[in-house]
Amino acid sequence: MIDILIEKIAALNNPTAVGLDTSFDYLPENVQAKCKTLADAGKAITDYNFELIEKLYKYIPCVKVQVAYYEMYGVEGMLAFENTLKMAKARNLVVIADVKRNDIGSTAGCYSKAYLSGVKIGGQMQIGFESDFITVNGYLGGDGITPFVEDCQKFNKGLFVLVKTSNPSSGELQDKIFKDGDTLYQSMGRLVNEWGKSTIGKYGFNDVGAVVGATHPRQAEILREQMPNTFFLIPGYGAQGGSAADLKVFFNKNNLGGIVNNSRGIICAYKNEKYRGQTFSEAALNATIDMQQDLSKYLGRAII
Amino acid sequence: MIDILIEKIAALNNPTAVGLDTSFDYLPENVQAKCKTLADAGKAITDYNFELIEKLYKYIPCVKVQVAYYEMYGVEGMLAFENTLKMAKARNLVVIADVKRNDIGSTAGCYSKAYLSGVKIGGQMQIGFESDFITVNGYLGGDGITPFVEDCQKFNKGLFVLVKTSNPSSGELQDKIFKDGDTLYQSMGRLVNEWGKSTIGKYGFNDVGAVVGATHPRQAEILREQMPNTFFLIPGYGAQGGSAADLKVFFNKNNLGGIVNNSRGIICAYKNEKYRGQTFSEAALNATIDMQQDLSKYLGRAII
Repeated sequence: MIDILIEKIAALNNPTAVGLDTSFDYLPENVQAKCKTLADAGKAITDYNFELIEKLYKYIPCVKVQVAYYEMYGVEGMLAFENTLKMAKARNLVVIADVKRNDIGSTAGCYSKAYLSGVKIGGQMQIGFESDFITVNGYLGGDGITPFVEDCQKFNKGLFVLVKTSNPSSGELQDKIFKDGDTLYQSMGRLVNEWGKSTIGKYGFNDVGAVVGATHPRQAEILREQMPNTFFLIPGYGAQGGSAADLKVFFNKNNLGGIVNNSRGIICAYKNEKYRGQTFSEAALNATIDMQQDLSKYLGRAII
Repeated sequence: MIDILIEKIAALNNPTAVGLDTSFDYLPENVQAKCKTLADAGKAITDYNFELIEKLYKYIPCVKVQVAYYEMYGVEGMLAFENTLKMAKARNLVVIADVKRNDIGSTAGCYSKAYLSGVKIGGQMQIGFESDFITVNGYLGGDGITPFVEDCQKFNKGLFVLVKTSNPSSGELQDKIFKDGDTLYQSMGRLVNEWGKSTIGKYGFNDVGAVVGATHPRQAEILREQMPNTFFLIPGYGAQGGSAADLKVFFNKNNLGGIVNNSRGIICAYKNEKYRGQTFSEAALNATIDMQQDLSKYLGRAII
């Protein structure tokens, strides 16, 4: 699956994932005012995402859908999540479900069925929330990740494992140094290398990627060196403070190696003075084009 | 919320959480055979859980509902999850949603809304998957946990943070030793102490508990000493290999400090030779009583 993502990035010259973290609060006030129930909210979020996807799909390789923003509206939110994944897939976008799931082996297998492989009911394989990639948390070690990796191989899917997260507190544990000289994020990175090594694709990257925050270029430089075959999902650009100038070190000499997520900066662009007077989807498109140009200034065109 | 759990455990002399990890595969074959769709599967799982809850609620303080076993059936599975939480609450059980959620601060806040606090739609607070406790993963550090802790204080809820998990690979990262002499699980334990210290209840425990696997009594002994005010959620008894004899060290001198989960050993007891010829709910009840007696042999009665 990583090859498909890389080819899309190269074709569009745009390593951007648009984050559909569509909180009800982000919707225009007149839309919010009409909603009385969780079902209304779920439907309004779905409609908003549909208009965004229709406007953006020709310009971007990928969407990242943060499940927390759907889960908070209960079952109706999860229906909006399912429908959003399907709409994005129907427009041929690569779909990253940002779910950060984690559990012991047998239970991790259930999560993998939810997103990557499916379950057999009535003699038919069926899948609840089909995604191309999901994010996972490796705190439990290898047996919690293996079920996902096996499904990636069987079903042509991919993972991004949390390594160095974008948030201010990420250093509390992740930057602590072990006796062997590695930080926790480096130790996690070494495991990610191990988990991914059997899935290497034609551009030198494997299907087990890493989440590395745009807000931590120093650590990213260390990880890029340590993990030459690992593709990075890079959150934290824009609203969280990461800048395009800092991102060069996330990429390799072929200008490959990462996809940069932007959520609020795009889906809420209509609230930004810069895009005043535009509809939310026009503003999102213009913010997407602006981001592509901002990234282009600092990152060369992908060579594949 | 921890006080309510402790009082229930003491009243029943039973520190058992029944794990409603109800996989479709666990259902009797004649029930499975009738199901053709994810909706059928979700309904069958709900019915199964309903019968279990009705049979068991007088004997146990608590259920733990593992969301992965529902998420794998998509939206219909999440509906079964919601209904299971509601049924358990209606029978006055303490409900632990085992979701192991984790994200950066703003997104962690969304998860907290899903399970602990709710969202405002149409002027009304509404909540998708209301739970008394949830499990969370602290790899992202404090800003990923604070939103949950704040909601615990406001809404009388609790957390269990993954510290030392029950699975075979848990040591790959969790047992590694930092330069300051702490293992990762001990460092996580120190953060858990910090996160919980403002929520201490009348029995000396606070609302920010820790997950510590029954399969790791050596580490549990260290943690019990290091975390005297932290209540432990203890998975891994039974099917995963943890025994009652090993559990004494998880508890304090008042025989308080932990709740022991058993999932397959109870909800699939009807497949066990020992309970042959019994319905699934009768077998579950007898397995629950057997577990209570097994624990009683090694753990004294809770003193509150």
